[in-house]
Amino acid sequence: MRRNAQRLRLNRGPARGRLRSPAGGETQVENYPEAKRSAFPEIQTIPTRWNDNDIYGHMNNVVYAEYFDTAVNRWLIGSGALDVPGGPIVGLVAETRCKFLSSVGFPDILETGLSALHVGNSSVIYGLGLFHAGAETPAALCRYVHVYVDAAGRRPTPIPESLRRALTALDPGFAPRTPARG
Amino acid sequence: MRRNAQRLRLNRGPARGRLRSPAGGETQVENYPEAKRSAFPEIQTIPTRWNDNDIYGHMNNVVYAEYFDTAVNRWLIGSGALDVPGGPIVGLVAETRCKFLSSVGFPDILETGLSALHVGNSSVIYGLGLFHAGAETPAALCRYVHVYVDAAGRRPTPIPESLRRALTALDPGFAPRTPARG
Amino acid sequence: MRRNAQRLRLNRGPARGRLRSPAGGETQVENYPEAKRSAFPEIQTIPTRWNDNDIYGHMNNVVYAEYFDTAVNRWLIGSGALDVPGGPIVGLVAETRCKFLSSVGFPDILETGLSALHVGNSSVIYGLGLFHAGAETPAALCRYVHVYVDAAGRRPTPIPESLRRALTALDPGFAPRTPARG
Amino acid sequence: MRRNAQRLRLNRGPARGRLRSPAGGETQVENYPEAKRSAFPEIQTIPTRWNDNDIYGHMNNVVYAEYFDTAVNRWLIGSGALDVPGGPIVGLVAETRCKFLSSVGFPDILETGLSALHVGNSSVIYGLGLFHAGAETPAALCRYVHVYVDAAGRRPTPIPESLRRALTALDPGFAPRTPARG
Repeated sequence: MRRNAQRLRLNRGPARGRLRSPAGGETQVENYPEAKRSAFPEIQTIPTRWNDNDIYGHMNNVVYAEYFDTAVNRWLIGSGALDVPGGPIVGLVAETRCKFLSSVGFPDILETGLSALHVGNSSVIYGLGLFHAGAETPAALCRYVHVYVDAAGRRPTPIPESLRRALTALDPGFAPRTPARG
Repeated sequence: MRRNAQRLRLNRGPARGRLRSPAGGETQVENYPEAKRSAFPEIQTIPTRWNDNDIYGHMNNVVYAEYFDTAVNRWLIGSGALDVPGGPIVGLVAETRCKFLSSVGFPDILETGLSALHVGNSSVIYGLGLFHAGAETPAALCRYVHVYVDAAGRRPTPIPESLRRALTALDPGFAPRTPARG
Repeated sequence: MRRNAQRLRLNRGPARGRLRSPAGGETQVENYPEAKRSAFPEIQTIPTRWNDNDIYGHMNNVVYAEYFDTAVNRWLIGSGALDVPGGPIVGLVAETRCKFLSSVGFPDILETGLSALHVGNSSVIYGLGLFHAGAETPAALCRYVHVYVDAAGRRPTPIPESLRRALTALDPGFAPRTPARG
Repeated sequence: MRRNAQRLRLNRGPARGRLRSPAGGETQVENYPEAKRSAFPEIQTIPTRWNDNDIYGHMNNVVYAEYFDTAVNRWLIGSGALDVPGGPIVGLVAETRCKFLSSVGFPDILETGLSALHVGNSSVIYGLGLFHAGAETPAALCRYVHVYVDAAGRRPTPIPESLRRALTALDPGFAPRTPARG
C-alpha cells in the first residue's frame, strides 16, 4: 500500500504537469486508462434501463456518461471524504473523453470500473471502464477530469487532505475489491 | 396458481370494462395499485444514478417513469413470453399515471414492484410501486397501460397466449418472489 | 375574459374539493384537458433530441414527461410570479397522468400547450398537450399536479397571490398567445 | 470556398493518418475545434429542459452530449445525404471528447455549432461548440468521431460520396449560415 500511495503522490509532481483552470489553459494530455479489468480498483454493478437504448437497439453514447458520472459520485459519497453535494467545495467536470469499443444495451447488467489516474493540486483525473458483467475487456473507456472549486466563488481550490487520502485506494496498481478479478 | 389465474381471468370480463384503442376511446378508470409491498409479485432492485436528481436534490418526477418502464420491459424480456423488442407485435404505452408519495434520490438503492392489475383482450394494466430498499410503504405508485399492436400496421392485436399465461405470475394476490416480503 | 377568470376563481372554492397532502389523502379526480389546441393559452416550441427516440423509433413515453415538466417550469420562471428554484416555497409534483395518442419523434419540432385546469389552496392542476408543429389535435395529453410546500419543512403552503394572479392567464377559456390558433 | 473544400479533401489523405477500427487501433489525436463562433458553419438553436439541470443548478455534463449528438444527427438528416436511421450504413460514435468551459442551464436557450474537422475513409471527426444565444465564445467544445459501418455486419465501410459532398459545407473555414455571426 505504501508503494501505491507513493506512486499516486509522484503523479502530483511538476514533471508530469498539472491541470490548469478548465476555462483558460490546457489540460494535461494523458492516455486513456489501461484496457483491462484489473486496472480498476473499484467495481460497481449497474443495471441498464429500457430507455438507455436508442433507435439502433444499443446503448446511446450519451448514456455511457451517466454511468461514469454515477461511478465517480457514488465512490465520493461512499468514501466519506467529501460532503457531496452540500459541502463548501464542489467538483466540477472540466473534461471527459470516452472511447466506445463494443456494444452494450438493455437488459444487460453492467459494471463500471473506477481508478484515479492523476491527482493534482485542485484536480483529479479518473480513469473509468465499462464492462459486461465479469468481462475482462471493457466495452468503453473514459478519462474524466474533476476540478475542485469553492461552492460560492467557483475558483479552483486545493483538494482536501481527506479526499487525497481516500483517493490512494483508487490507484490503478491496487487490486479490485471484488471477487470478479480472479 | 389455478385460483390466481382465475382471478386474473375474471378481470378480463365485460363487467369491469375493456381498454379500447389508445387513440380513440376511453381507457378504463381504475384505482392505483394497493400501497403495500406485498401487492407486488415481482420486485427488482435498481440503483439511482447521479443525474436522476434534479435541482431540488431529489429524484425528478420524470425519472420515476424510467424505473417503471424498465421494470415492465425487464420482466417481459425475462418472461420469455414475447420477443422484445424485435417481434411481430409490440406493446405501446397508452397511458401512465404516477403518484409521488415521498422523496427518493441518489445514492439510494431502490426497488420497483410490479403487478398486473388487469389483462384485457389486447391490453395490460400494470400496477407498479417504487420502494426504498426493504421498505413496506411505497415512495411512488404507478398505473401503466400497454396496448399490443402489430409492429407493421400498429393496429391493436390480441395478447398472445404465452404472454397471457406469463402474466398470471404478476397477479397481485401472489406472494413476491423475493425474501424481502418476510 | 371576465367570465373565464371567474371560472378559475370558482375552481378554488371548497365546493369543488381541495387537493390534500400528496402523501396522505386523495387528489381530486378530474378529466384530462380538452383535446384541442385552443384549450391551451400558452404554447411553447420545443425541438426533439436524437436520444428522445427509443428502440421503436419514436419518442419514448418517459420523455413526454420532460416536455411537460419543462413547459410548466418555463412558464413559472417566465411569469416572474415565483422565485424558481431558489425561493422559500417550491412546487412538488404530486401526480402526473399522461395519455399517449399518436407517435412523435426526432427530428420533429413539437409544441407543448399549457393551461391551468384547477387552482386550489396550495395546489395547481395543469392541463398540457403535446402537438406536432401547428397541429390542431394533440399527440399526447397530460394532467400534472403541483403542490406548494415551504422549502425548509416541506409542508403544504398556500399559493402566493402573485402566482394566483399569473395563473389566470392559463385559464383554458383564454385564447392562445400564438398565431398558430388561427 | 474552393480553398476550403480543398483543405477538407486534403484531410482525407494518408499523410494525416486514418481512423482505424474503434475497437482495435488508435484514433488520430487532434485538437479540439477552435473556440470561436465563426469556426462553426452550422448553428442550431436548442432550448434547455428543466431536467437538464442537476443538483448544482446548472446543466449536468452528461446532457451536453445530448446536444452534440442531436446537432450531428439533425444535420445528417437535414442534409439528405444519408438515410438516418434506417439506411444500409450507420454512423457509430467511436469517441467523444468534451471540454466544459462555463456554466449553462435551464431556462437558457442555447446554440450548438457544428463543423467537420476531418473526413477520413470511413470516419468523420466533427468539431462542436455550445454557445449561449448569440455568444462569441463557447461554453463547451466537443470532438466527436463517427465511424461508418454496414448496418448488418457492423464492419467499417467507406463514406458514401453523397455524404462526403455534403460534409464540405461543414468545413470550419466556411461562414456560418445564420445571421447570428454578424
